[in-house]
Amino acid sequence: MALTSEQRAEIAAQRNEPQLTSRPTVKAMEELLFTPIEVLDHGFLRVVDYMGDDSAIVQAARVSYGRGTKKVSEDAGLIRYLMRHRHSSPFEMCEIKFHVKLPVFVARQWIRHRMASVNEYSARYSILDREFYLPALDQVAAQSRDNRQGRSDALDPETAHKVLDILRHDASRCYDDYETLLDPDGIGLARELARMNLTLNTYTQWYWKIDLHNLMHFLSLRADSHSQYEIRVYAEKMIDVLKAWVPATASAFEEYRRGAYTFSAGMLKVIRRRLSGENVTQETSGLSKREWLEMNSILETQS
Amino acid sequence: MALTSEQRAEIAAQRNEPQLTSRPTVKAMEELLFTPIEVLDHGFLRVVDYMGDDSAIVQAARVSYGRGTKKVSEDAGLIRYLMRHRHSSPFEMCEIKFHVKLPVFVARQWIRHRMASVNEYSARYSILDREFYLPALDQVAAQSRDNRQGRSDALDPETAHKVLDILRHDASRCYDDYETLLDPDGIGLARELARMNLTLNTYTQWYWKIDLHNLMHFLSLRADSHSQYEIRVYAEKMIDVLKAWVPATASAFEEYRRGAYTFSAGMLKVIRRRLSGENVTQETSGLSKREWLEMNSILETQS
Amino acid sequence: MALTSEQRAEIAAQRNEPQLTSRPTVKAMEELLFTPIEVLDHGFLRVVDYMGDDSAIVQAARVSYGRGTKKVSEDAGLIRYLMRHRHSSPFEMCEIKFHVKLPVFVARQWIRHRMASVNEYSARYSILDREFYLPALDQVAAQSRDNRQGRSDALDPETAHKVLDILRHDASRCYDDYETLLDPDGIGLARELARMNLTLNTYTQWYWKIDLHNLMHFLSLRADSHSQYEIRVYAEKMIDVLKAWVPATASAFEEYRRGAYTFSAGMLKVIRRRLSGENVTQETSGLSKREWLEMNSILETQS
Amino acid sequence: MALTSEQRAEIAAQRNEPQLTSRPTVKAMEELLFTPIEVLDHGFLRVVDYMGDDSAIVQAARVSYGRGTKKVSEDAGLIRYLMRHRHSSPFEMCEIKFHVKLPVFVARQWIRHRMASVNEYSARYSILDREFYLPALDQVAAQSRDNRQGRSDALDPETAHKVLDILRHDASRCYDDYETLLDPDGIGLARELARMNLTLNTYTQWYWKIDLHNLMHFLSLRADSHSQYEIRVYAEKMIDVLKAWVPATASAFEEYRRGAYTFSAGMLKVIRRRLSGENVTQETSGLSKREWLEMNSILETQS
Repeated sequence: MALTSEQRAEIAAQRNEPQLTSRPTVKAMEELLFTPIEVLDHGFLRVVDYMGDDSAIVQAARVSYGRGTKKVSEDAGLIRYLMRHRHSSPFEMCEIKFHVKLPVFVARQWIRHRMASVNEYSARYSILDREFYLPALDQVAAQSRDNRQGRSDALDPETAHKVLDILRHDASRCYDDYETLLDPDGIGLARELARMNLTLNTYTQWYWKIDLHNLMHFLSLRADSHSQYEIRVYAEKMIDVLKAWVPATASAFEEYRRGAYTFSAGMLKVIRRRLSGENVTQETSGLSKREWLEMNSILETQS
Repeated sequence: MALTSEQRAEIAAQRNEPQLTSRPTVKAMEELLFTPIEVLDHGFLRVVDYMGDDSAIVQAARVSYGRGTKKVSEDAGLIRYLMRHRHSSPFEMCEIKFHVKLPVFVARQWIRHRMASVNEYSARYSILDREFYLPALDQVAAQSRDNRQGRSDALDPETAHKVLDILRHDASRCYDDYETLLDPDGIGLARELARMNLTLNTYTQWYWKIDLHNLMHFLSLRADSHSQYEIRVYAEKMIDVLKAWVPATASAFEEYRRGAYTFSAGMLKVIRRRLSGENVTQETSGLSKREWLEMNSILETQS
Repeated sequence: MALTSEQRAEIAAQRNEPQLTSRPTVKAMEELLFTPIEVLDHGFLRVVDYMGDDSAIVQAARVSYGRGTKKVSEDAGLIRYLMRHRHSSPFEMCEIKFHVKLPVFVARQWIRHRMASVNEYSARYSILDREFYLPALDQVAAQSRDNRQGRSDALDPETAHKVLDILRHDASRCYDDYETLLDPDGIGLARELARMNLTLNTYTQWYWKIDLHNLMHFLSLRADSHSQYEIRVYAEKMIDVLKAWVPATASAFEEYRRGAYTFSAGMLKVIRRRLSGENVTQETSGLSKREWLEMNSILETQS
Repeated sequence: MALTSEQRAEIAAQRNEPQLTSRPTVKAMEELLFTPIEVLDHGFLRVVDYMGDDSAIVQAARVSYGRGTKKVSEDAGLIRYLMRHRHSSPFEMCEIKFHVKLPVFVARQWIRHRMASVNEYSARYSILDREFYLPALDQVAAQSRDNRQGRSDALDPETAHKVLDILRHDASRCYDDYETLLDPDGIGLARELARMNLTLNTYTQWYWKIDLHNLMHFLSLRADSHSQYEIRVYAEKMIDVLKAWVPATASAFEEYRRGAYTFSAGMLKVIRRRLSGENVTQETSGLSKREWLEMNSILETQS
C-alpha cells in the first residue's frame, strides 16, 4: 500500500471547505485534488494544484480579452490546429503541480527534464522512511539481447524470487545500518553522510510543477513503450489526469503526438513508391534493416 | 484612457459566476482578477490567473502532506528564512498570469527575461490598433551627462511640447501609411510586411505567465531606480499585486531584496575600519570613486 | 551592401595570428570565422566562435574518455541514431556564437527562442545607425487570402514601387527626427526615449549564442516554408554553416527533421488503407480538408 | 586514486597534435585540457573544452566588431562593472565543458542546477564500475545540533572507523549482488533493474557543459561554506579552473560575489546607527538572534 493511514488522514484533514473563485475551474480536477493515485508498490502521485483549462489555451492563443469562444467545438478545433503546427506557447499557459513519491533511481531519470520546478524531500535535513521499491513478479525481467538498454521477458518465477530476495535483503540491511549510523544515542553520524548508505530503490518524494506544454513533452517520452517501466507507470497515470484536466488538448495530444509517427525522408520515398504500386524490399529501400522494420511495424498496425 | 469601453465591457462580461474550488484561494486576488490596472497613457496590466499562496511555498519547502502550518507567524518565519538564504525553489511553486498592454520598445526590454511564458498579439495575423505611447510632460527628459544609459531632468515645457509634437506626428503618419499599405481595396500589402512601418512606441499586448521566484527577480531589476521609467511603472504596479497575493513573501522581498544592499569585499573592509573608529577617506579606502559614492549613499540613507 | 568598409576593415584587423589549441577544431569553420555572410539589404551574420564538432557529440553520448571512435562512419551512424530517437542531450554539447545584424521586427520573432544567450546593441546607451530594411521588389507581396498570417504573390512592380517609397520615406523621416531629438546642441532628448521614434524596419545587431540542439530546433521552425521570408533567409544561411561545422549532424538533420514528416494518427490510418489497396477519398478519410491536402502534398512530392 | 592507469592512458592517447585556430585561446586552459584533477577518493574533473575568454565578455557587452579593447586594464574595469551591476548576459557568452566523476548522492544535488547540459553514463545501457565513495577519516562527522542540515565535528577515530566499515561493507555487498544479478550466465537481470541495488555512494560520471554566468551561480552556492563538503570540493577545484580561464572575471567574482555580503534592510539600519556612534545591542536591533550573529560575524571578520 502506497500511503500509510496516517498519511491518508493527513491529506483528508486538508480537504477544507472549498472557496469561491473566478479563476478557470475544472470540476473533474477538483475531485482529483485530494486523491492520491497509487503507483508501484509504495509510490503515488496526487494533483496539488492546477492553473487554466482548455479555454485558457484558446484565450492566450488569441490574446483575447475574454475566455475563448463560447462554442466548445471551435475551441477544440483551434487546439488541434495549435498542436498540429507545434505552436507550443499557448500550452505553456496552463500549469499543474503534483506531489509524487517515487524510487530514487526513477527520480534520477525524471529530473533530467529541466523545464519544471522541483522541491524534493531533503535527506540532508530529514530522515527517509524505510520504504524501497521491489518489482512485481512479472516485472523481474531479463536483460534484452538486441536492445542494450531494454528489458526482455520476465524471468522464471523461481529466479525472480531469488532476485527479489536479494533486493529486499540488501535494501533492508542498508536501511538498518542507516538507522545505526544516525542513532543520536549511538554513532550520531550527520544525516547528509548517512544517506549515502541507502540503495537506489529507496523511495523519495517531491513537489513537481510543470506547464502543460512541457508536461506533454515529458509524457510523450516517458509514456512511450521504450521508456523504463518504472517511470512509464507514472506517466500513464498522468495521462489520465491530462484527460480530466484538458480533454480537448488530451485528445489532440493522442492524435498528433502519441498516435502519430514521423517518417524520415528515406521512409517517405519508400511510401511514395509503394503507393505508386512498386513492390519495395528492404534491399531496394535504401533504409537500414532497423528503420525498415520500424516503418513496417507502423504501417501494419491494426488500428 | 488605457482601455476602450468595448474592452471594459468585454472583460466585465467574462466575470462569470464564481466556482467552488479546493485550491489555495486568495481573496484579495479574486478582486483583482477582472480589474485592469492602468499604466502609462494606453497601457494596462491585469491578473488573469494565479496558482498558490504563501502557504503553498511553505508546503513545498517542507514537502509536507498538508497545507503548511496552521500558524501564520511560523509560515512567515520560514518564508523569511527561505528568502534570506536564497532557497529559490519553493517560490517557483506559485505562478501568476498577466494580460499586459505595453509599447513595443518596452516589450523588447521585458522579453529579455526568458524564464516566463509569452503569447503576444500577432501583427503577422492581425492589425494593430492606432495606439502609441507619448510620455507625460514631466517624463520628457534630457540625456544624462554622467550615465550614458540614463535620463536626466525633464526638458523645459516648450522643448518638451516640441518633442511630443514630433513623436505624435511621426507615429500618426506611420500609422496612416500602415493603413494605406494594408487596405485590401488598395495596395493590399501582407500584414507581416506592413507592420515594419510602425514606430517603436506602438502598443502591443501579451499574456505573460511567470513563477513567483522569477517574478521577484524581474521586479528586483525592473522596479529598481536604474530601470527605464516606462518599464518601471509596470513593475511597481506588480509589486502591489505581489502584496495582495503573497503578503508574507512580499514583506520578505522588501526586507531581503529591495531594501537590502550587497557590499563588495572592498566595501566590507571599509565598513569594518569605520566601525573600529578609523576615519576612512576615498583615497585610503581602496574603492573607486563611483563605488565610494554608492556605498556612502547607502550608509547615509535615512530610513 | 550589408557592411560598411570601416566595418570590414575592423573585422579584418582582428584576424590575428592563429593560436594552437588541443580543442576540437573544424577547418571549414576556421575559414568562416572572420567572414560576414550578407543577408537582406543591410544585414549579415558571422560566426564568432564555436565549440565542439561531430565527434564531440559522439564522445558525450558515450561519456567516453576519448574523442569518439576513430572511424567516421561509426560516428555518423551513432549521430543518425541519436537524431532519429530524439536523444537531444548530446547535441547540446556543441555551441556556436553568431554576430547578427537584422531588422527590429525580425529580432522580435527571433528572440522568442528563449534557449539562447543574447547581447543586443543598446539603443539606451548608443545611437543606432541610419539603416533600415526595404524588401527587394519581388518580396513586396500581397496579403494571402487563405492564410491569415502569410503573404501571397508579389505585387505588380508599380504598386511595389509605391510601397517602397512609403517605407523609405517614413523610415527616413523618423530617423531624421530621431537625430533632431538626440542633438546634444538642440533638444538633447534621452536616448532611451528618442529611440521610440524609429520604425520597426530599423536594423539592430546582437551576439547570439546557442547550443546545437536548440539551433536545430530554431532552424527547423525558421527555415520552414511557413516562416516569414525575412527570418527564413537568416536560417537558410545558418544551415550552410551547420553543414560546414558538423557535417554528419547536418546530414541526419536533413534526413530526420527537415526532410521528414509527422503523420497524425488519422493520416496513418488512411495510408494503411491505401497501401492495402483501398481507394480513399477525403470524404471517407475522416480527415479535415486541410489535413487531407497537406497529407497528399507530402505523398505526391517528387523526390 | 581517482583514475585507473587505463583511463590515464586513454586520455593521454587523445592528446593529439594541436591544431591552429583563430578562436579566442587561453594558454593556461590548453594545459588543463588533458589533465584530470582528482577530487575525493575516486572522483575527478577535467576540462574537455572551453569557448571564449575575458575579452569575449567585453566584446559581447559592447556588441563590437572586434575583440574588445587592446588594453587589458580597460577590459578588467568593464568586467568589474558588469559583475557589480549584475549584467549577466555577457558572461553567458563563454562556455565550458567538464568531464566529472562523482558519487551518485553528489550528482543528485548537482543536477538541481538546471541551466546546464548533461550527459550521464547510463546504467540502463552499461555496467557501473565497482567504485564507491568513502569519506576520509576527518570527514566522518557528527550531525550538527543547531543546524539540521549540517555536520558538526569529526567523530572520534574509533567510531569513524566503525562508520567506514559499515559503509564499505554495505556498498561492497550491494555491488557483489549487483554483479550476481547481472551475470549473463546466471540470473541475467536487466541492467535497468539491477542498478537499483547499488548504494548512493556509487560513483557515476558525466559530461557537464555550462555557461560562465551559470557556472558562477553554481560556484557561489556550492563553494559556499554551507554547502555539503562532498560537492564543495568539486566547486573549489572549479574556482581554480575559473582563475586559469578568465582571470579578470575570477577576480571580480571574488570581489563582488564570494567576498561580498548582502545586508538586509534591517541590518542596514543597525549599521547606520552604529556608524553614527550608537551602541546597538541585539535587543535594540530589531534583528532575530540568528541574523544578529550572522551580521556580526561578517563585520568582525579580519581580512
